[in-house]
Amino acid sequence: MPLDPSCLGAQSAPRRVSWQARDCVLYALGVGAGPDELAFATDDIRNVPQRMLPTMPVTLGVNLGVLKAAGPIDWTKLVHAEQGLELFDELPVTGEAMATSRIAELWDKGSAAVVVVDTEARGVPDDRPLFRSRASLFIRGAGGWGGERGPSAPADTRPGDPGLTVSYPTSDNQALIYRLSGDRNPLHSDPAFAARAGFAKPILHGLCTFGIAGRAVMRAVAGDPSRIKSIQARFAASVYPGETLHVDLWPDGNSVRFTTRTDEAVVLSHGVARIGPAADYIAS
Amino acid sequence: MPLDPSCLGAQSAPRRVSWQARDCVLYALGVGAGPDELAFATDDIRNVPQRMLPTMPVTLGVNLGVLKAAGPIDWTKLVHAEQGLELFDELPVTGEAMATSRIAELWDKGSAAVVVVDTEARGVPDDRPLFRSRASLFIRGAGGWGGERGPSAPADTRPGDPGLTVSYPTSDNQALIYRLSGDRNPLHSDPAFAARAGFAKPILHGLCTFGIAGRAVMRAVAGDPSRIKSIQARFAASVYPGETLHVDLWPDGNSVRFTTRTDEAVVLSHGVARIGPAADYIAS
Repeated sequence: MPLDPSCLGAQSAPRRVSWQARDCVLYALGVGAGPDELAFATDDIRNVPQRMLPTMPVTLGVNLGVLKAAGPIDWTKLVHAEQGLELFDELPVTGEAMATSRIAELWDKGSAAVVVVDTEARGVPDDRPLFRSRASLFIRGAGGWGGERGPSAPADTRPGDPGLTVSYPTSDNQALIYRLSGDRNPLHSDPAFAARAGFAKPILHGLCTFGIAGRAVMRAVAGDPSRIKSIQARFAASVYPGETLHVDLWPDGNSVRFTTRTDEAVVLSHGVARIGPAADYIAS
Repeated sequence: MPLDPSCLGAQSAPRRVSWQARDCVLYALGVGAGPDELAFATDDIRNVPQRMLPTMPVTLGVNLGVLKAAGPIDWTKLVHAEQGLELFDELPVTGEAMATSRIAELWDKGSAAVVVVDTEARGVPDDRPLFRSRASLFIRGAGGWGGERGPSAPADTRPGDPGLTVSYPTSDNQALIYRLSGDRNPLHSDPAFAARAGFAKPILHGLCTFGIAGRAVMRAVAGDPSRIKSIQARFAASVYPGETLHVDLWPDGNSVRFTTRTDEAVVLSHGVARIGPAADYIAS
C-alpha cells in the first residue's frame, strides 16, 4: 500500500534519552571491541578513562514511531538502506539528551518507498547540539503514490586499491550481544522469523556492521574518537554472524572513504567519514 | 602472613540476591552461548521459553567478605582452585534468594593456605533450598599456622579415551563480556594488573571456562538444563581469551566425568557432573 505523502515533515515529540557507562561497554562489545580497545570495552580500568565509541549515537533517541504518520507499514518489508551520523561533540559516557525524530525525505521509487528519518539530539540541561543521525529506510511495496523518485545513488567509485584494510572477525553470537543495545528486531535472533524474511538464519544488524566499520576508521585513520565528525554508509548486502569483515579504507585529507566486505560480497558501500581536530572531552 | 585459623566456620549475614531475565542472557553470552542455545542467550524469542544456564548460580550470592575473619589477604596471591555447585531445583530466569557464605574448610599447605567458602541460597519468599556452591581458594604465602594439611587431590584417572569431545572457541573479548556478570577482578581485563600477576595478558575467568564446560555437559549428555544436579571441577591452568576449549566427556550412568583443555594444556581437571531426572520448572 502506498505511503501517505502528507507524512513528510512529521516530527516526534522530544523524548528524553539517557545512557550509562555500562551501556557504552555493551555497545562496544556488541560491535566487537576487545582487549585492544579497553577505553571503550571496559569502564573500570585504572588509568584508562572510558570513552564512547563514536558510532554509538546511532542507537540513541531514534523514534520510529514517527512513521505512523505514513500509514500502516509492513515491517517485514522494511530494510535499513543507509545510515549517516554527524557528531557535534564527543559524547560523555554517562549522559542525557532530548531527541526528536522527523521524516526528512520521502521518495517514491515506484513499487517501493524510501523514507529518511532524521534524529537530532541536544544535551540536557545545556541544550547544546550533540548529534544528528539519519536513517534511510527502504520499504518494498510502499511506493506508488505518484511522488518524486528522488536522486539516484552515485556510483561508488574509489581511487584504486585501498590505502589500508582492517579485518575483524565477528562471533557466532555477535548479533545476540549487539541487540542488548536496543534493536530487538527478531530478524537478528529468531530463525523462524529470519526464514520468513528469506534468510537461511538470523543476520547481523546493519548497524553492527556500521559500528565495526567505525572502529576501523577510528583505529586506522582518526586515532582519537573525537576526531570523527561524521560517518555514513549504504547497506549493500547482509552479513551472517561469524563472518569476517574486511574494512577497506581510502584516506584522503580530512576524510576517508571506506567499504566493508565479507569473503563473499561488499556489505557496506559509499562509506565516507569526515576527520577533524580532536574535540574537548565533555566530562560526565 | 598465616591466616587466622579461628576463622573456620565464620559466616556472613544472609544477603538478598536477585536476578533478571537480562542477567541470565548476559551470563549465557559471557560463557559463549549462541544461536544454537537461544533459550539461554535470548529472552524474547517466540515459542522459546527462556531458561537459565545451570552453572549461572556460581555467580549468585557469593560473599567473599567472609574472608575478613581470616585476617588481611593479599588478593594478588589468591587463585580459584576448585569450584562445585549443587542444584536443588532449576532456577527461574527472574528470581530472588537469600544467600549465606561460610568458611567451611581451612587447610594449611605449608607456605600456602586453602580456604573453602560455601554459599547456600534459599528462595524468597518460599525459603526452599535452591543451590549450594563451593569455591576453594588457594592463597600463596598464607599458610604456616601449624594446621592440618587436609586431603590431597586424588589422581584424575579417567577410563581411556573420552566418549565424546565438544570444542568451543572463545572470543578475544570473552572475559570482557563475562565480567559483566559481576566478577570485575582486573586480572581479567587490565594488562598492567595481569602483568604484575605474572601473565602475558589478562586471562579468562576460571568460572567462564567452568560455564563453557557446563554448556558441553548439558549439550552432549544432560539435554535439559534441569537434569544437571551437580557439577564440579578443578582449575588446572589458565586460559587466554581467544583460545579454543575442548571439553572431553566420559559419560557413565548417572554421572559424567570431564576435563577441558586448550591446544596447550589441560585447564579443568577432575570434572564431574551428576545427571538426574528433569526437574519441574519453577515459573518466575
